[in-house]
Amino acid sequence: MSAQNIKTKSSYSEHGGDIYRSASGLGVPENKIVDFSASINPLGISQRVRLEICSQIGSLHNYPDPDAGRLSTTLGKYHGVNPESIICGNGSTELIYLIAKALKPKNVLISAPTFTEYERACRMACSEVRVKRDELKEKNNFDINPDNFIKSMKGCDAAFLCNPNNPTGRLLGKDGVLKIANAAKKLKCYLIADEAFMDFCPEGSVVRSVEDNPCLIVLRSMTKFYALSGLRAGFGVFPLNLVDKLKKFKEPWTINTLAQKASLTALDDYDYANRTFKLIKKEKKFLEENFKKSGIRFIPSDANFYLLKIENAGKAIACLRKKGILVRDCSTFRGLDSSYIRIAVKRRKHNLLLLKELLRLCRA
Amino acid sequence: MSAQNIKTKSSYSEHGGDIYRSASGLGVPENKIVDFSASINPLGISQRVRLEICSQIGSLHNYPDPDAGRLSTTLGKYHGVNPESIICGNGSTELIYLIAKALKPKNVLISAPTFTEYERACRMACSEVRVKRDELKEKNNFDINPDNFIKSMKGCDAAFLCNPNNPTGRLLGKDGVLKIANAAKKLKCYLIADEAFMDFCPEGSVVRSVEDNPCLIVLRSMTKFYALSGLRAGFGVFPLNLVDKLKKFKEPWTINTLAQKASLTALDDYDYANRTFKLIKKEKKFLEENFKKSGIRFIPSDANFYLLKIENAGKAIACLRKKGILVRDCSTFRGLDSSYIRIAVKRRKHNLLLLKELLRLCRA
Repeated sequence: MSAQNIKTKSSYSEHGGDIYRSASGLGVPENKIVDFSASINPLGISQRVRLEICSQIGSLHNYPDPDAGRLSTTLGKYHGVNPESIICGNGSTELIYLIAKALKPKNVLISAPTFTEYERACRMACSEVRVKRDELKEKNNFDINPDNFIKSMKGCDAAFLCNPNNPTGRLLGKDGVLKIANAAKKLKCYLIADEAFMDFCPEGSVVRSVEDNPCLIVLRSMTKFYALSGLRAGFGVFPLNLVDKLKKFKEPWTINTLAQKASLTALDDYDYANRTFKLIKKEKKFLEENFKKSGIRFIPSDANFYLLKIENAGKAIACLRKKGILVRDCSTFRGLDSSYIRIAVKRRKHNLLLLKELLRLCRA
Repeated sequence: MSAQNIKTKSSYSEHGGDIYRSASGLGVPENKIVDFSASINPLGISQRVRLEICSQIGSLHNYPDPDAGRLSTTLGKYHGVNPESIICGNGSTELIYLIAKALKPKNVLISAPTFTEYERACRMACSEVRVKRDELKEKNNFDINPDNFIKSMKGCDAAFLCNPNNPTGRLLGKDGVLKIANAAKKLKCYLIADEAFMDFCPEGSVVRSVEDNPCLIVLRSMTKFYALSGLRAGFGVFPLNLVDKLKKFKEPWTINTLAQKASLTALDDYDYANRTFKLIKKEKKFLEENFKKSGIRFIPSDANFYLLKIENAGKAIACLRKKGILVRDCSTFRGLDSSYIRIAVKRRKHNLLLLKELLRLCRA
């Protein structure tokens, strides 16, 4: 039994977004928490999606469509891929676990730092899994170097590439990813490109390359850009020869009806997407200018969050928490020491609040 | 790899409730399908729950509470059990898979006929699993005989007891279940009592006996009685010494925010529960009288559905489907031949429609 290698329950709260414990700890309602720890579109869900959810409540006595057929078809059109190659999930997290269960890789390459669920999923699926690390260097802004990644990939049967990477926000350009994907094909190693934050820099996606590469899998999320975190929706694009194998391991009815309907409406809401791009661009400029002015060290980001390096991060996190402000403690990421925090890009009012508090802490 | 033993994607539609394919096949909207194939409270979700869902849409940008803390506390109070012994899931189905993943039983006792996901989950978790059958007899109304069950349980490390059983609707009384549970304790075999339909006959539950028996697990669903099928919510009550072991295998954020909030409100809606009991009682009486009058053979049921034995069931199912009426084809249940269908208890208008069509088919 591999249980001792698998993180326990408490690991959930190591992720961002657990406003519930903080609110309960502070004795305030959850909506009083200013949450920079989860990197979610600060516009919240769009008005059109809200109305769609309300209009669908009357159909909730029916089971969800277990195949998420309509959503898969629409996602296929939207991303220019074969709908038959799409499997939807309860967030892209379900698909990380599904891949691990179905493929049971024995030798896995995972970057350090990166999203922690890849390793947990692989350990859960196969107790003897060996994890090789692609260790990213601070002096390179934690950028993934395709040549190093390819070198490390040798002897592996699966490799996870989070792009843009979480928690650094760094995008590896399409050419770099495709170089790795081609090497993966030759090495017969599955490359899982997790593009959970790619909607914020869509030109970087390799989703259309899946059909040409039997070893390339792309995961996408609907929870970040469309702010559907509470509803849970994500999907994967798989080589066609893998789809049936994966579906054999899929649990039924994991994507609830409202998540399916909300995703359909969200994909069609171009106005919301445009407003999001404008807001994120403006606020990133504002934050970066202020980071520089205040001497706050940050990693330039292609996503909607920043990795910051600050002194006494642990103390800062605790002080912010007391004021109802959550940031992501990055000491739980392998490959990062305890001097890092991750913060989401939010609306101006909240960004100002965070900057003010960070400045106060840095000067203290 | 056990993949060849695991049912593929198409097995989803073997369950009831896949209105999507039927609607698409008939070229009608989904709400024109009269669905007797999924056994859901015909009242649909309550007005209070609808309002609660609408009021929570604004918080969907936040991740769900990964521990479903408030829901677990409320469920604990409602059922008189320790909240620490509760794990919530994306329907009780998630918990069936979680149990299989965490306990990886090698020798499993499963009734025939019963819910098909137990076997699928066990095969997925452990490719060498051996499944022993407790074969139920038509002449006994497919009742579970505790002594036979206990005899078969010897040598097993897990046994699944669906109570009331699906698809028969037969309840094994509390004494019988506790007799089996005591034997399970002596045999060191986990007894998983799946009480997904127990809300329709709540006096039969053994949920409060979990704390006294380290081998007893009880699963409950919120999707049937509270008509939350489209939202997905269920829970399990586990011996305390198992809770951490199971949580080590639990995927994060599986129960969406609206499912948690809707469940909280549903549990408090006693008026809805009372109206449900009244309606189901009245409609069961009406259906049984008419089954008898029309010579339709049925198994007396303790739940909100009936197993019917009819001639040419396959043809009948197809004829009904053409008219937009779905019933559950039971030929996919091990232990039943192709002469059975399962139908839900619905509102009078729909029950009348089904009776009329069944009568026409029986006379044809």
